[in-house]
Amino acid sequence: MQRLLLVLVAAAGALVLGLEPPRGPCVAPLQWDGRMVQYDHSSGRNSRANISYDGVTRRIRILQTHRRHTPCQRFFEFIYLYDSMVMFQIEQKTKQCSKIALSEPWDPYDIPENSTFEDAYFIGGVGERVAVQEWSDRKPARKHETWVGVYTTRDCYPVQETYTRNSSVTTSTRFFDLQLGIRDPDVFTPPSTCQSARPERMAESTC
Amino acid sequence: MQRLLLVLVAAAGALVLGLEPPRGPCVAPLQWDGRMVQYDHSSGRNSRANISYDGVTRRIRILQTHRRHTPCQRFFEFIYLYDSMVMFQIEQKTKQCSKIALSEPWDPYDIPENSTFEDAYFIGGVGERVAVQEWSDRKPARKHETWVGVYTTRDCYPVQETYTRNSSVTTSTRFFDLQLGIRDPDVFTPPSTCQSARPERMAESTC
Repeated sequence: MQRLLLVLVAAAGALVLGLEPPRGPCVAPLQWDGRMVQYDHSSGRNSRANISYDGVTRRIRILQTHRRHTPCQRFFEFIYLYDSMVMFQIEQKTKQCSKIALSEPWDPYDIPENSTFEDAYFIGGVGERVAVQEWSDRKPARKHETWVGVYTTRDCYPVQETYTRNSSVTTSTRFFDLQLGIRDPDVFTPPSTCQSARPERMAESTC
Repeated sequence: MQRLLLVLVAAAGALVLGLEPPRGPCVAPLQWDGRMVQYDHSSGRNSRANISYDGVTRRIRILQTHRRHTPCQRFFEFIYLYDSMVMFQIEQKTKQCSKIALSEPWDPYDIPENSTFEDAYFIGGVGERVAVQEWSDRKPARKHETWVGVYTTRDCYPVQETYTRNSSVTTSTRFFDLQLGIRDPDVFTPPSTCQSARPERMAESTC
């Protein structure tokens, strides 16, 4: 009886306080296809892409999409292979290829175990919504956040990742149309033109 | 029979082309309560707030929320009354009040009729997702966008509004936990301290 009372008191407390913080971060899916929009705050540019994400063998493939009339713009495919610490940049029309060493360590699209819970809410409204959680790498009274991640509550799909340096945002990336698994694993294999790849990154604009 | 065939061909065409652009923008709800996070790109600051939106009598009430240890920070309530073109800024602790003339015209949280359709997608993934549409004020080959709005497809709830000036983002606002209708219409009535309001905006930081 006393135990039941305790449970009831705890439940009433949770109701008064609103949404309780979860016990820990959810576990994000390891392999998926989807779409993304990345906003680069320094260039003021949005770039849209299809993405294949493989957290098992630490590979990401990004295929930029072009829908607008952009005469000077070149569009690329990027293949990141973190086990080899290289990235291939492939121009979509000519298949010209650059091979560039990666300097940043692998940073999976997930919520690290020691993250700080920031908020939980529904995107949308009554009858048409999805529950998400917001986590960051902030340490209360010790460290401002350099990363904020928004993930769906149940299946832990990434929704938005924001990176900050010196308290101003550098990139924010929104994800959508996620499908579990990788439909075509060949997307991680660079084309034959990458066998004689150049070592410099190609510019995005030709004008 | 010929008609059926036509319908089938049209349906197959839509399937091949993927998501078809909608005939026109959806109509956003006129009155709602919700929450928002506004990111100001010039200050690099995120501010969270509760919002009550009344598109009928053109009023918005924003109550900043504070959850972190922020010693120098003051938190405000804002009441925008567009029919009178004034905004009240009320300091939450002291109820000090400033009354400021609005210079920008009323800009409702909706998708204007002449907007350009940008994209349609699901936030989240299979089994846990919400369908949204992206619209902007871009005019193909004539004008870059200064506004991009993301709204849910069926009920037209606002999800994100982004404003750009000279091709760099100024503010981006995310909305969530929307509830139709306004629970407490009194939130649009300024407190008595606003009867002797000062004409200058109060600073957000006291240090």
